[in-house]
Amino acid sequence: MPDAANSPGAQLGAAPRIVTACVVLIGDEILSGRTRDSNLSYISGHLNQIGVQVREARIIPDVEETIVSVINEVRARHDYVFTTGGIGPTHDDITADAIARAFGVPIGPHPEAMAILETHYRETGGEFTEARKRMARIPEGASLIANPLSKAPGFQIGNVFVMAGVPMVMQVMLDSLTPRLEGGATMRSRTVSGQIGEGTIAEKLGALQKRYPDVVIGSYPYYRGKIFGTSLVMRGVDAGLLDEVAGEAAALIRGFGIEPVEGEPA
Amino acid sequence: MPDAANSPGAQLGAAPRIVTACVVLIGDEILSGRTRDSNLSYISGHLNQIGVQVREARIIPDVEETIVSVINEVRARHDYVFTTGGIGPTHDDITADAIARAFGVPIGPHPEAMAILETHYRETGGEFTEARKRMARIPEGASLIANPLSKAPGFQIGNVFVMAGVPMVMQVMLDSLTPRLEGGATMRSRTVSGQIGEGTIAEKLGALQKRYPDVVIGSYPYYRGKIFGTSLVMRGVDAGLLDEVAGEAAALIRGFGIEPVEGEPA
Repeated sequence: MPDAANSPGAQLGAAPRIVTACVVLIGDEILSGRTRDSNLSYISGHLNQIGVQVREARIIPDVEETIVSVINEVRARHDYVFTTGGIGPTHDDITADAIARAFGVPIGPHPEAMAILETHYRETGGEFTEARKRMARIPEGASLIANPLSKAPGFQIGNVFVMAGVPMVMQVMLDSLTPRLEGGATMRSRTVSGQIGEGTIAEKLGALQKRYPDVVIGSYPYYRGKIFGTSLVMRGVDAGLLDEVAGEAAALIRGFGIEPVEGEPA
Repeated sequence: MPDAANSPGAQLGAAPRIVTACVVLIGDEILSGRTRDSNLSYISGHLNQIGVQVREARIIPDVEETIVSVINEVRARHDYVFTTGGIGPTHDDITADAIARAFGVPIGPHPEAMAILETHYRETGGEFTEARKRMARIPEGASLIANPLSKAPGFQIGNVFVMAGVPMVMQVMLDSLTPRLEGGATMRSRTVSGQIGEGTIAEKLGALQKRYPDVVIGSYPYYRGKIFGTSLVMRGVDAGLLDEVAGEAAALIRGFGIEPVEGEPA
């Protein structure tokens, strides 16, 4: 778990540690191509703002054995794990049971979750069916993640945060759980683009990367109809250093007689 | 490797086997949220048409150790592995080297790849820089995957197919390699939707799933402004059985006084 604030390094003013996360997208519909996921990029962008870096993502089917083994693998390797999908009322919603099995704990109706749903269906006039009661089944020892939008909560157990798959619902759950996270270094980025081929600048760019090992330079070709070019994305924790490398990258492009632009191409 | 065509089962007219694949998306830009991936759903849809099921996807950073271990893990577990990203001319393009390491083979300039690129840059008037020559470095024992669009080839080694990350280029490479794949059962799907809550139909739907264990029924809530409903997606290899289950699903929705529609909601 993140401990930057309490570590001797932090007291001595050392660089904050890198806090990492894995996102696990659970659902046959993403693997089959039926649904194009939008949750990963949202979660990544949100977490980076508070100093949590998504370093891995897994997309897995609604198969209990797979969920159990993947969760146990990634929760040991990252500070945090975020899952989406599989916590609704239907037979194919098996995430909560699988997470309970991964942690070796029983699962059953959670009194607070039951109360939230009971109130919700009484107020909206919906029937609180047996199927809907399934959404109050929470692994023992987990704490709830509030869902102001559609009420049925997510939950946290250990370093694993279990959220809905519907993007609007996932987003309010992510807001609810954010105060529980302790971030580390925030990764900043700068982008410089130019209408020039990757192959033309590659050698000088490689040399630039060697001179600045603390900044990761990514090179991404782009195409806009007949116009093509390259975006250089510099990422690192030190804003001053990023300014320096972004300046060098712009100069590099200008050296080929091409005027660079800050950011992505228009 | 797929062997359905030669297996005794195939000769006796048994059901074709399930051929599985893993897609590995390589690139910091997807994890950071800068780029929203579109390759996974394209690859999944394309492969399913020829009887290859994507059962897992991994999204990993441009880190050699990670690429090596993930490739070795998933190539042992699936019939086929498809990677995208990291085979361009710049310093951050490390996929080819990582794949060579994963297979324990040397990597060097491939004569045919060199010839393709030499011709391309001569014809287009571009300089065949040292950096661009990097794109002809191919692991020993690999065969090339043609790239009619921008020429720099992908490659296949064992059951691993290495493609570019730029969607247009990935798509022509996927076309090029498709004749090499041996598919198995083709997963068909039928969708029935209705303006009804998941929680209302969940119990009857669970019972329907129990009666048809050979069809996987997925339940997906949808929201269109103030209108909400559920799409039921039936997937399986037997078209007749799918028709039967789709009919039952429609009847189930109609039983609640709601008119079902075939397919996704408008």
